[in-house]
Amino acid sequence: MIYFRSDYSLGAHPKIMEALMATNMEHTDGYCLDHFSDETADMIREWIGKPDAKVYFMVGGTPTNTVTISSALRPYEGVISPSTGHIYVHETGSIEANGHRVFSAPTEDGKLRPADVEKVLLHHEDEHTVIPKMVYITHPTENGGVYTKAELTALSQCCRKHGLLLYMDGARIGTALTWPTNDLSLKEIANLVDAFYIGGTKIGALFGEALILLNDSLDDHFRYMIKRQCALLAKGRLIPVQLKALFEGGEDSLYFQLSRHENDLAIKLAEGVQGAGYKLWIPHQTNQVFVIMPNDQIAELEKDFFFYTWCPYDEDNSVIRLVVSWGTTEDDVMAFLKAI
Amino acid sequence: MIYFRSDYSLGAHPKIMEALMATNMEHTDGYCLDHFSDETADMIREWIGKPDAKVYFMVGGTPTNTVTISSALRPYEGVISPSTGHIYVHETGSIEANGHRVFSAPTEDGKLRPADVEKVLLHHEDEHTVIPKMVYITHPTENGGVYTKAELTALSQCCRKHGLLLYMDGARIGTALTWPTNDLSLKEIANLVDAFYIGGTKIGALFGEALILLNDSLDDHFRYMIKRQCALLAKGRLIPVQLKALFEGGEDSLYFQLSRHENDLAIKLAEGVQGAGYKLWIPHQTNQVFVIMPNDQIAELEKDFFFYTWCPYDEDNSVIRLVVSWGTTEDDVMAFLKAI
Amino acid sequence: MIYFRSDYSLGAHPKIMEALMATNMEHTDGYCLDHFSDETADMIREWIGKPDAKVYFMVGGTPTNTVTISSALRPYEGVISPSTGHIYVHETGSIEANGHRVFSAPTEDGKLRPADVEKVLLHHEDEHTVIPKMVYITHPTENGGVYTKAELTALSQCCRKHGLLLYMDGARIGTALTWPTNDLSLKEIANLVDAFYIGGTKIGALFGEALILLNDSLDDHFRYMIKRQCALLAKGRLIPVQLKALFEGGEDSLYFQLSRHENDLAIKLAEGVQGAGYKLWIPHQTNQVFVIMPNDQIAELEKDFFFYTWCPYDEDNSVIRLVVSWGTTEDDVMAFLKAI
Amino acid sequence: MIYFRSDYSLGAHPKIMEALMATNMEHTDGYCLDHFSDETADMIREWIGKPDAKVYFMVGGTPTNTVTISSALRPYEGVISPSTGHIYVHETGSIEANGHRVFSAPTEDGKLRPADVEKVLLHHEDEHTVIPKMVYITHPTENGGVYTKAELTALSQCCRKHGLLLYMDGARIGTALTWPTNDLSLKEIANLVDAFYIGGTKIGALFGEALILLNDSLDDHFRYMIKRQCALLAKGRLIPVQLKALFEGGEDSLYFQLSRHENDLAIKLAEGVQGAGYKLWIPHQTNQVFVIMPNDQIAELEKDFFFYTWCPYDEDNSVIRLVVSWGTTEDDVMAFLKAI
Repeated sequence: MIYFRSDYSLGAHPKIMEALMATNMEHTDGYCLDHFSDETADMIREWIGKPDAKVYFMVGGTPTNTVTISSALRPYEGVISPSTGHIYVHETGSIEANGHRVFSAPTEDGKLRPADVEKVLLHHEDEHTVIPKMVYITHPTENGGVYTKAELTALSQCCRKHGLLLYMDGARIGTALTWPTNDLSLKEIANLVDAFYIGGTKIGALFGEALILLNDSLDDHFRYMIKRQCALLAKGRLIPVQLKALFEGGEDSLYFQLSRHENDLAIKLAEGVQGAGYKLWIPHQTNQVFVIMPNDQIAELEKDFFFYTWCPYDEDNSVIRLVVSWGTTEDDVMAFLKAI
Repeated sequence: MIYFRSDYSLGAHPKIMEALMATNMEHTDGYCLDHFSDETADMIREWIGKPDAKVYFMVGGTPTNTVTISSALRPYEGVISPSTGHIYVHETGSIEANGHRVFSAPTEDGKLRPADVEKVLLHHEDEHTVIPKMVYITHPTENGGVYTKAELTALSQCCRKHGLLLYMDGARIGTALTWPTNDLSLKEIANLVDAFYIGGTKIGALFGEALILLNDSLDDHFRYMIKRQCALLAKGRLIPVQLKALFEGGEDSLYFQLSRHENDLAIKLAEGVQGAGYKLWIPHQTNQVFVIMPNDQIAELEKDFFFYTWCPYDEDNSVIRLVVSWGTTEDDVMAFLKAI
Repeated sequence: MIYFRSDYSLGAHPKIMEALMATNMEHTDGYCLDHFSDETADMIREWIGKPDAKVYFMVGGTPTNTVTISSALRPYEGVISPSTGHIYVHETGSIEANGHRVFSAPTEDGKLRPADVEKVLLHHEDEHTVIPKMVYITHPTENGGVYTKAELTALSQCCRKHGLLLYMDGARIGTALTWPTNDLSLKEIANLVDAFYIGGTKIGALFGEALILLNDSLDDHFRYMIKRQCALLAKGRLIPVQLKALFEGGEDSLYFQLSRHENDLAIKLAEGVQGAGYKLWIPHQTNQVFVIMPNDQIAELEKDFFFYTWCPYDEDNSVIRLVVSWGTTEDDVMAFLKAI
Repeated sequence: MIYFRSDYSLGAHPKIMEALMATNMEHTDGYCLDHFSDETADMIREWIGKPDAKVYFMVGGTPTNTVTISSALRPYEGVISPSTGHIYVHETGSIEANGHRVFSAPTEDGKLRPADVEKVLLHHEDEHTVIPKMVYITHPTENGGVYTKAELTALSQCCRKHGLLLYMDGARIGTALTWPTNDLSLKEIANLVDAFYIGGTKIGALFGEALILLNDSLDDHFRYMIKRQCALLAKGRLIPVQLKALFEGGEDSLYFQLSRHENDLAIKLAEGVQGAGYKLWIPHQTNQVFVIMPNDQIAELEKDFFFYTWCPYDEDNSVIRLVVSWGTTEDDVMAFLKAI
C-alpha cells in the first residue's frame, strides 16, 4: 500500500529522531522551561528578524489555533475564517467550545481577500451582534494555494485599517515558502501578521509547532491559556529539540529541503496525471494535488494506494486528494502514474 | 414622534396590566412553582392539542432560544439557522457562548428549505467536524415570511429523515397564525416540530414567552438549564399571569386579536406606500414592512417617525423597516402615508 | 396559608404598579435606551455620590452576578466567594458555565474577611493554577449578617493590596442599610467596592436590579456581555420605571421604608420566638430569622405557614428560615408567634 | 545538578526510544486509526480483564482528565475532587473551562472517603444547585498515598449507591500497583471504577496515557470530544507504540520494573533522610518524598539539587518534595543523603 493520504503517515525524519536520541538522557525542567526551548526560540526570532517576538511551542495545529484565537478574543468577539479554513472545517468546533463564533467567509479559491473580510464586517452593528476581531488564514491554503506578497499585504492593510488582528496558520508553511513562484519571506510575513505558526508536524517532525506572537497585546498570560486548554506538554523540550533540528540553517534547513522535496514530487505528480489525461480540480500549488477521477477507477486505485476521496465531482466522478509528504519517494509517484 | 421602530415600544396591553394588578397581592411560591404556571401550562397544552407537552415560561426570546438549543445539543453538535436567523444575527453569539456552532445557511428568502439543510449536512464527515443536530427557524421569518403547511411539512420530514431536531422560534407567531393566507394551525405546528415557543413580549405582554417541548428527549433537567443560563425569574408567576390573559380563548384570544390588528394595519401601510409609488424590498407578510426610500427622504421622515434604516439599497436609497405593533393606531399609519 | 417563604411571594408594591401603569402607554426605544433609564441612572449616581459611575439595569440577581463577574475575568481567572455565597450555592454553576472557577472560602459566619481571602491566594502559584482575581460578597450575607464599616474597609484594603476586584451583591442591601446598628452609607460602599448592585426584586419591585460599576476597567463592552448572557430586557424601561419609584427620596425612599418595615417585623419575630423559648441558629440581623425547631412541630406549622426548612440541626430538630418581606404584616408575625 | 524535580526531566526509557525508531518509517493512517493502536488496546483489555472496555490514547494527563470529565457530565453537573486533586490544583481550571464545577472536598490525607463525598452531596438541593455526578481521585494520591482494596471498594460502593461515576487518574498508577503493601490489582480496579487511565508520561514514555472506559454511557462520540478539546494527536500511533513497549508483559513489564525502581529508591531516600534526623511531612508512599527542612539548608541544597519547595512548614522550615523518577540512580540518592 502506497500512502498519499496525509502529511503524517510516517514518524519523523531520521535527523529529528537522531536529535531526540542525542538529548534523551539529559535532565531538564518540564513544560518548556528548558534551555532547548530558549535556544530554539532565539533561533526562530533571528530567522524571522524579530528579536522581541514571543515564541511558544505547541504539540499540534488545533491547540495552537484554539489557544491563540481564544486568548486574543473577548467573549463577544469572533474570528473570520475562509469557509474552507481548518478552524471552520476540521477542528470540531474548538473555537466555539471556547465561546467564540467563527465567521465562515466564502472565497473564490480558498484565499481570503479584503472584500471577503469587509462583507463580514457588515455583520456587526451594535451590542446585539458579535464583533469580528480577528482574521484567520492558512498559508498555504487548505487547498495548497500560496498567497503572494501583494495579496498578503492587501489583507494585512485591510486588517489594520479595521482594527482586526491577522493570524496565519502555517501548518504547511514550508511548502509555501519554497514554492517556485513564492515571493514572500518569513521576515516579510512576520511584518504583515500579528501572529503565525511554523508547523513541524506536517513537515518532518513527530509533532510540534512554533507559535510566534508579534503583537504584545496577544501575549497576556499565554502559558496559562495553553495549560487551561490542556496543551502544555510535560516534557516540553521534545518540541524545541525537534524544531531546532528541523529549522537550523534557515533557507538551507532540513525544513526547507523537505518542503522542496514535497513540492518537486507534487509537481511531477500533477504533471503526470494531467499528461495521462486527467483534469485537476483546482490549479496545483504546493504538496497537495486534487484530481478528478472516475469513481470506478478510484475504487480500483484504492487497492494499492491510500488517499482521500475529497468530494463528489459529478455523478460519475469524484475529486481525490493526493498528498506528497517528506517521506514520499519518486518511486511512489511513478507507481501511481503507472497505475492510471 | 410616531413609533414604527419595534414591537416593544409600549408597556403591555391594558388587559394584561389588569391581570397583573388583579393578582398582585396574592402570595405564591417563586420560580414558576405556582398555580398560575400550572393553569396556564394546562391551557396551552389544550390549545395545541398535546396533553403531554412540557411548557416552560421564559422572560424573553434570546434566553428561550439559548436554553432550548444548548440543552438539546451535546458539546460536539451544532444548530443550523437561516443566515438571517435571530440566533445568528441578533443574539451576540449566545449559542457559541454555550460552546455550540451556529451553521449559517443561506436561503432564498429567509425560509429554510430541505435543500438548504442538506447542504449543511455535507459539512459533517467524522470526528474532525461538528455534527449538525438541530434546525432553528423563526415563524414568521425575520423578514415576516409565513411558512406554508407544505413548506413546514417538507422541512419537518427532512429533519426526521436525517435525525435532526426541529425548533421554531415563535417570537411573532401570532402574526403568522392570523395572516390571511396562513394554512397552518398551532396543533399542526405542534405535530411538525420538536419544540417551539409562543412569544408574548412582541405581541402585547410586558415580557414572557411560553416554550413548548414536544420531544421528551429535550426535557432533561430543563429547569437546571434555565437557572444555569440565569433565566429563571424569581417572581415567575408574572409570566403565566400575563400569558393567560393573552392566550385565553384561543382563536378569539387577545393574542389573535392583537395579531390581526397588526397584520391589518401593516397591509394598509404596505398598500399605501406602494400606492405612493415606493417599492417594497421584499414581498410583504405580517407586521413588518420593508420599503426602499431615498436617503434624503429618510432623513426628513426621521424628524417625525422613529424606525430602523435596515440596510443600504444602492447609493441613493436605503431600505427602512416599519414595524406595526399592537399599539400602532390607524392614525399612525395615516400620518406616515400622508408624510410621504 | 401565611408566607414566610421568600422575599418574592407577592407582585410589586402598589406604588410601583402605579408607576408602571402611569407610563404604560408611552412609546420608548427598547433595551434600556430610553429616558427612564437615563433619569434613573442619574438619580442613582447622585444618590451614591459618584457622577461617573456606570449604571446598568438587570432583571435579576443571578444574571447581574454572572455578567459582572464573567465580564471582569480573563479565562484563567476565578472569583473568591464565601462558601455560603449565592454564586457558589444557588446559581447552578452560572459562573463556571462561563468558564471561571468559584473559589469557595469557608468563613466563620458568612462574612468574608481578609484572612479568608488570603488563604485562597495561596492557591495561586504559576500557570498551572487559576488566578483568584475578584472577591464576591453579599451584603447582607446570605444569612442576613451586616458588614460593619470596619469590616468592609478591611476587606477593601485587602483586595486593593492584592490587586483583587471587590464586588458586592446587594440583593437585599436595603435591609443592611437600614439595620439599627448599620454604620455604612451607600456613598461609603461606593468608595470601597469596584462594583455592586442595589436589588429591587427582593424589596418591592416585580423585578429589577441596578448594577453600578465604579471601576472603569469593568466597563468593557458591557452591553454586549449582557446580551450575550441573554439578559438584555426588550422592554428595558420596565426596570428603571420601577426603580425610580422605589429609590426616589434616598433615605426616605420607598426602598428604605420597606427595608425598615422588614427589619422591624423581623426583630419582633426573632424576639417573639426567643421569648417563646426557641433558640436562634445564628444571631439575628435583617429580614431573615433562622430558628431551631423540633421536627414534629415544624410539620405542624407547615399546615398554616409556608417557609423553608433550611437544614437539619440534630436528630430531632431542624433549622427553619423565616423571611419577612415588604408584604408581611404584623398580623402575620403575630399569627406565627401565637402558633408556637 | 541532580534532578529530584519531577517525573519528566528525561526523555523516554531507551527501550521506548527503540520502539519508536523501529516503527518510524512505517506508513500508517493518523489519529490512532492504525494497527498499533488496535493491538495495544487489545493488549490493555486483556491485561485488565475487560474484553469490552474502550481504550483511547491521549498525550497527557490534563487532556485525559478534561475530556473524560467533560464528556461524562451534562452542563448542570459537576465533579467531586479531593481538595488536593490535580484537576482542582494544577490544571488551570480546565474543567471549569468546559463549564463544570469542581467540588473541592477536604480530606484527611488526600484520599477521598465516602464521608467526604457524602458531605458534598448535601450541596445538591434542586435546580438552583449544581448536581455532583462524578468522583475524581488520583491513585496514588497527589502526595503518593496508595488506596487499599478496602478503601477503593468502599468508595466505589458509595458512588454506586448515589449514582455517581467514579474516575481514577492513574498518572503514576504503576508506583501504586508495585508498592510493597499494595493489595489492589489492575483487574480489581477495573471492576471498581467507571473509567481510569494508566499513565505513561510520568513512568518512562516521552508522553502518552491509556484511557480506559468501563461504563458504556461514557463512550458517546468520544473521539469528537477528544478532537474538540484539541487533544487528538495527528501521528497518533506514537502513543500506542510507546505504551506497547512499556506495558508488554504485565507484571513483568517495563512499566512495573520502572515503577518498582522508583519505589525502591524512594524508600531508600525516605529512610536516609529520616536516619539523618529529618522529619517527613507525611508518611511516605510511592515515588515522592516530602521532607521538612530548614530554609537555609534548602537554599544550600539548591546549588546541587533541583527540587520543589512545596510549601512553608513554619517560620524557619519548609517542606520540599523529592521525586524519584525512572531515571534516578542510586548514586543520585546517595549524593543527596551525603549532602544533608
